[in-house]
Amino acid sequence: VSYDGTRFVGWQRQAAGESIQGLLEEALARFEGAPVTVHGAGRTDAGVHALGQVASVQLTCTHPADTLLRALNASLPPEVRISAVEDAPPGFHARFSARSKTYRYVIHNAPIVSPFERAYVWHVPEPLDVTAMHNAAAALVGTHDFAAFGSAGGETRDTMRTITRSVVEGRDADGTVAYEVTGTGFLRHMVRAIVGTLVEIGRGWRPPSSMAALVAARARADAGATAPAHGLFLVRVDYH
Amino acid sequence: VSYDGTRFVGWQRQAAGESIQGLLEEALARFEGAPVTVHGAGRTDAGVHALGQVASVQLTCTHPADTLLRALNASLPPEVRISAVEDAPPGFHARFSARSKTYRYVIHNAPIVSPFERAYVWHVPEPLDVTAMHNAAAALVGTHDFAAFGSAGGETRDTMRTITRSVVEGRDADGTVAYEVTGTGFLRHMVRAIVGTLVEIGRGWRPPSSMAALVAARARADAGATAPAHGLFLVRVDYH
Repeated sequence: VSYDGTRFVGWQRQAAGESIQGLLEEALARFEGAPVTVHGAGRTDAGVHALGQVASVQLTCTHPADTLLRALNASLPPEVRISAVEDAPPGFHARFSARSKTYRYVIHNAPIVSPFERAYVWHVPEPLDVTAMHNAAAALVGTHDFAAFGSAGGETRDTMRTITRSVVEGRDADGTVAYEVTGTGFLRHMVRAIVGTLVEIGRGWRPPSSMAALVAARARADAGATAPAHGLFLVRVDYH
Repeated sequence: VSYDGTRFVGWQRQAAGESIQGLLEEALARFEGAPVTVHGAGRTDAGVHALGQVASVQLTCTHPADTLLRALNASLPPEVRISAVEDAPPGFHARFSARSKTYRYVIHNAPIVSPFERAYVWHVPEPLDVTAMHNAAAALVGTHDFAAFGSAGGETRDTMRTITRSVVEGRDADGTVAYEVTGTGFLRHMVRAIVGTLVEIGRGWRPPSSMAALVAARARADAGATAPAHGLFLVRVDYH
């Protein structure tokens, strides 16, 4: 599932407002003739986008996957597209079966943001030290207690997570600075809290070496501000 | 000037609705302390986008170009961005001094359009013969009477125009088919009428050889339907 998160309340169904989960459940219920529950691999927040979200659902109807694909895209708004529908093995669950998720956060580090990028980047016009950010990001790889980057409101008390890739790349030509992170799972707002901290490092407010100390101290108040939602993309989900 | 034309009534000031010209004139009038008239190189229609529109204005205020650039971007909505402000030689006029304009029209020729492209492409899911389209497009190069591709409501009775480049390129990997055209000037809706005709050729409804005959017959009713506005970009304007 890919979606432009701009106008949605996020992946998860809410009491008010349109959610991606809610839209998929409504569309599928029309096929099934009964309410269904759709599980997403990552419960992206309001305003967060997805290029490769994965969702699973249990249906009794026997329409072929191709028919479902076409019918879903015909009934969903154009901000939400299904790229593929597949039969899954018994017991498959989009979230619990996932091996890793990859997020990408895009910063526009130049004075002027193109009208065509404005909804998909965080605009940071002040100069950023990309090497310092990259070095700090590398310190996150491994299995750590990420309480320093977790928000209240997450479902779990267990804040141990494993990050396998954490890199910052800058493209001088157009001022794009992108953070990509792959991990087994993420706390609520974790990627955005990491990015907020990386930008403070890039602006010289904190040394790159402070990242390891932050993780060790496990105090959310010590880390940087949460970066805005609209620069974040769920890029892909990998399965065993 | 670059802009996302989605929510505007077009470049030109209108009795109702927001126009790019109107926004620029309002922003500049605040500096000048008096009403101003802004001239654009191309009067793009409602929904048409620009990557490199050029506009000229005569001011008496003596703010440096850099100050104007920052102040304009601070007061314009994010859908409209000024990339550069320069002092022009006496007598310069964005439209009358232009040597050529380049437009790009983007077609998405695949079953599913990404949520991030939907506002910037024309979705044509049926297979297109890109080679046939390219050959037909080549027949437009030269100085011709383009009445076959002109709409009523244009300002001029003279429908002779010179096209110096007219190419269709397909990218199999993502289904993008793009038409790029450079010319001394264009009639109202001309690029969109050409694209509508090229798509009919691409779908096999007309042979590629019909393009030259269409131009020669000079009858708008013979050409294809006008392609939707939101796939069109004013890419650049060149000056002597």
